[in-house]
Amino acid sequence: MPHYKLALLGFGNVGRALAQLLLRKRTELNERYDITFSVTGIATGRHGIAINPNGIDLEGALDLFRTGRTLDLLSKRKVTNSLDFIQECGADVLFENSPVNYETGQPAIDHVRAALEQGMHVATANKGTVVHAYHELKALAAEKGKRFFFESTVMDGAPIFSLFRGALPGAQLKAFRAVLNSTTNLILTRMENGDTFDGAVRYAQQIGIAETDPSGDIDGWDAAIKVAALATVLMDTPLKPQQVERTGIREITPAHIAAAKAEGKRYKLICTAEKDGDTVRGRVAPELVSLASPFASVEGTTSIIEFQTDVLGNLTLIETDPGPHTTAYGLLADFLNAVR
Amino acid sequence: MPHYKLALLGFGNVGRALAQLLLRKRTELNERYDITFSVTGIATGRHGIAINPNGIDLEGALDLFRTGRTLDLLSKRKVTNSLDFIQECGADVLFENSPVNYETGQPAIDHVRAALEQGMHVATANKGTVVHAYHELKALAAEKGKRFFFESTVMDGAPIFSLFRGALPGAQLKAFRAVLNSTTNLILTRMENGDTFDGAVRYAQQIGIAETDPSGDIDGWDAAIKVAALATVLMDTPLKPQQVERTGIREITPAHIAAAKAEGKRYKLICTAEKDGDTVRGRVAPELVSLASPFASVEGTTSIIEFQTDVLGNLTLIETDPGPHTTAYGLLADFLNAVR
Repeated sequence: MPHYKLALLGFGNVGRALAQLLLRKRTELNERYDITFSVTGIATGRHGIAINPNGIDLEGALDLFRTGRTLDLLSKRKVTNSLDFIQECGADVLFENSPVNYETGQPAIDHVRAALEQGMHVATANKGTVVHAYHELKALAAEKGKRFFFESTVMDGAPIFSLFRGALPGAQLKAFRAVLNSTTNLILTRMENGDTFDGAVRYAQQIGIAETDPSGDIDGWDAAIKVAALATVLMDTPLKPQQVERTGIREITPAHIAAAKAEGKRYKLICTAEKDGDTVRGRVAPELVSLASPFASVEGTTSIIEFQTDVLGNLTLIETDPGPHTTAYGLLADFLNAVR
Repeated sequence: MPHYKLALLGFGNVGRALAQLLLRKRTELNERYDITFSVTGIATGRHGIAINPNGIDLEGALDLFRTGRTLDLLSKRKVTNSLDFIQECGADVLFENSPVNYETGQPAIDHVRAALEQGMHVATANKGTVVHAYHELKALAAEKGKRFFFESTVMDGAPIFSLFRGALPGAQLKAFRAVLNSTTNLILTRMENGDTFDGAVRYAQQIGIAETDPSGDIDGWDAAIKVAALATVLMDTPLKPQQVERTGIREITPAHIAAAKAEGKRYKLICTAEKDGDTVRGRVAPELVSLASPFASVEGTTSIIEFQTDVLGNLTLIETDPGPHTTAYGLLADFLNAVR
């Protein structure tokens, strides 16, 4: 029975949800897949770093975090930075969940590179690594006979990348069309219900969906990054977020919304990409969708993507009610797919 | 570079679409997967049987069929029945596409069994094999170190079975909800547009979607068989079509349709299954769906399925515009997934 040593770099909402999921699935992984595991390292941003080659008590780690104490209390070794942590944690699999930097992908790219060099599989929810270093990291993983997986970077744990990697062999992705940003989705829905743009933004901030500076969502950057990640991987064509044509939702007024409603339509911030020979044209812009389309049914944090391939009619996936627990599932699935 | 010998048992719309797809993808399979293949056997219902260990000219076979001549003209060996064909074709992979028998699953089950016994992988679009012999055939395949795959039995080539086999490890399917029968979908849409039930049935027959005896669709049998196949495989719980609670669409009158429309709703023949411990409750019945639901957007031959698991929010798949070419793709995907 194979035993895997796991390390968690990042212990925020997603990292902690992963710890809880690992606890919940421990028996099932053993029974269904003959897999046992221990967690030999957990590195947090501000709550210390724990390394224990014999396995860290996950419940204990969650408890320390909850009560504001440092994870250093569980550590057999003193390390003070991420790269030393990767060097010392002795894991077979690294879950990389450090904060995202959209401009450079750092320090996550350095973390992934170091872990692959050490002979670990890597699973990450960090879009920066895919957008800025996919081809390099994939090649490095192949050279080391390991896997670099990132299912949770787009549509949380919904199986997008693994679908094309596994379930759709021999299919070529020609185009996709998607709603991938929940903040703009929520703002547009609030405006349909009579709120102003500014009021809707404030509401999204109050419930913790939009950031203090909401421009990353409103101006379409988050959506553009997701388009770039999908195109880079699924169409095997490097595309930077800056190369995605991008129009946000700032220009949409209550009058636009009312006119759309009168026509039986809704505005959605639509992501598209089309492959044309060796290039991909990516685009993010508000579009009117008919109420008869499944795109109109997408509310709140729900996301949708429609794939156009050379072998099927259109294939659409909808993911409802995502959250840290579904992102955590994507990371777990990456681990299982890497080692199966 | 591995070379695979393929045999096609059944050369109807799906078998011929598969032959065309194999021709179209030959170069790509070689370049992307290092796979080469030859077709060493084709068995038709009424146009003869061809066996050639050196490979049959697929274009030639399609041409003979098109011009009403027998495929015996391409054969190096004389065989006259399906089981002899399986014995003699010398293939590594059998594509089983004989006509479906919903009551017994025969003769397809005997074909699959014989092919697995001979050491072939088997891919089939025949629901009867799954509903009547899934556990036996799966066990036989495992014993022989071969694969018994059937992606095209539900929702054509859309990746349903492979999704749970590969892309969603560690997920438990708790329930699903789906629209899987296109004839009833079409009839209900025609009735919404003012046609009578009988008129809508005649229309569906005229365009070749409904059979001369349309009761298999209208009374929900086709949908019940799909529910049984999905529950048997994805919930690992044997369920016979007869065990699925079943209400067809005969009782739905134009008055019902008009009342639904006035409420902003539509009737759909909804398939559901829920797992409860070691049992599954399957059900097929017309239900009202709100226009705000993606289920309301499903028209004509498009199908939809929503999965409820223990690890994600609901995950929905929609397949638009299926046909023999998408069923053929599911068979090709089964072949590639079996040998990769």
